[in-house]
Amino acid sequence: MRTTCPKLYMALVHFPVYNKTRQVVATSLTTLNLHDLARLTVTYGTQGCYVVTPLQRQQELARHVIAHWTQGYGAVYNPTRATALHHLHIVDSLEALEHDIVQHCGHIPRYIATDARPFPGSISYAALREILWGQEGVFLLLLGTGWGLAEELITRCEYILDPIYGPTSYNHLPVRVAAGIMLDRLLGSPRFSMMQEPVSDL
Amino acid sequence: MRTTCPKLYMALVHFPVYNKTRQVVATSLTTLNLHDLARLTVTYGTQGCYVVTPLQRQQELARHVIAHWTQGYGAVYNPTRATALHHLHIVDSLEALEHDIVQHCGHIPRYIATDARPFPGSISYAALREILWGQEGVFLLLLGTGWGLAEELITRCEYILDPIYGPTSYNHLPVRVAAGIMLDRLLGSPRFSMMQEPVSDL
Repeated sequence: MRTTCPKLYMALVHFPVYNKTRQVVATSLTTLNLHDLARLTVTYGTQGCYVVTPLQRQQELARHVIAHWTQGYGAVYNPTRATALHHLHIVDSLEALEHDIVQHCGHIPRYIATDARPFPGSISYAALREILWGQEGVFLLLLGTGWGLAEELITRCEYILDPIYGPTSYNHLPVRVAAGIMLDRLLGSPRFSMMQEPVSDL
Repeated sequence: MRTTCPKLYMALVHFPVYNKTRQVVATSLTTLNLHDLARLTVTYGTQGCYVVTPLQRQQELARHVIAHWTQGYGAVYNPTRATALHHLHIVDSLEALEHDIVQHCGHIPRYIATDARPFPGSISYAALREILWGQEGVFLLLLGTGWGLAEELITRCEYILDPIYGPTSYNHLPVRVAAGIMLDRLLGSPRFSMMQEPVSDL
């Protein structure tokens, strides 16, 4: 059992993802996602959060938001926001993301896909938590935008995480909220440790 | 132990809350909060979510957003959003909120305040979960905006919930993300049952 926090990165993926009609597209940023995921990154001690978009204008927008709040008056006005946004990194592809992680910590990350849809062979939160806290290595949690990660990407991942369900069958949470729940289940206080298998998800 | 979901309401409170300089103010809506909290309401089977603001223009804004997505083309374009937003109710005060709950279910709710700051005598998630699932009655979870619920309001509540911490000391999460984590800890799957007291929050 490792005694230090797992080395977990997050990636907010804007391509390749599905649109409403299941075409593979590049989605636009929702700037609040940048703030929220940055704050989650620091709250849960993750290694960092990558914003993946091949669209140059979207990259510029992200950099502009980050610069505004981490430099000059923005950084003074809201220091907790500045602290958080320092943990965001903008990349144009998953290849660039992987290259960056290898540069920083010498390891290729182990990929974990997430989706609101159920997939055969998906891993439970209990099992993944055990892997994160029990094994060495670097992990990367992929968060989809739009209508979810493209299947071509999901099938390349080592794990696909169970969808998030509460006590109902409705599970259409925005990525920023889902990410918080995932991180709390995977990295949150041991008082929420998993001691038993669920009888039912619903 | 109750066999049905706890009767828990949520309230997104825009007054009375603090601004950055600890003055009691009425904050503006963040429309994404409406969408996110509505989706959480349905995901976790809560009874409903009240948006509390005394400002008439803000009430109109909220009603406009809800109407747009629950009627006509908006409801057709995004049915999961429409489903969720039907669970939002706009009120001008906590008194009006309480009156509405009493009208609907015949009980005065038991108030639970939430805050990012630690308070003496705050209740842990484990203990509150036990109360929610073990006792009859109706509960109301107050979520603050701005820099948090005014103390005059917190001291009127039966419970003040522990702040959310991950493995670090940084705990500046946006209310929409914090709400998701709270609901998952309080109402989420029993596989995340609390079996031990934490050694440390950090």
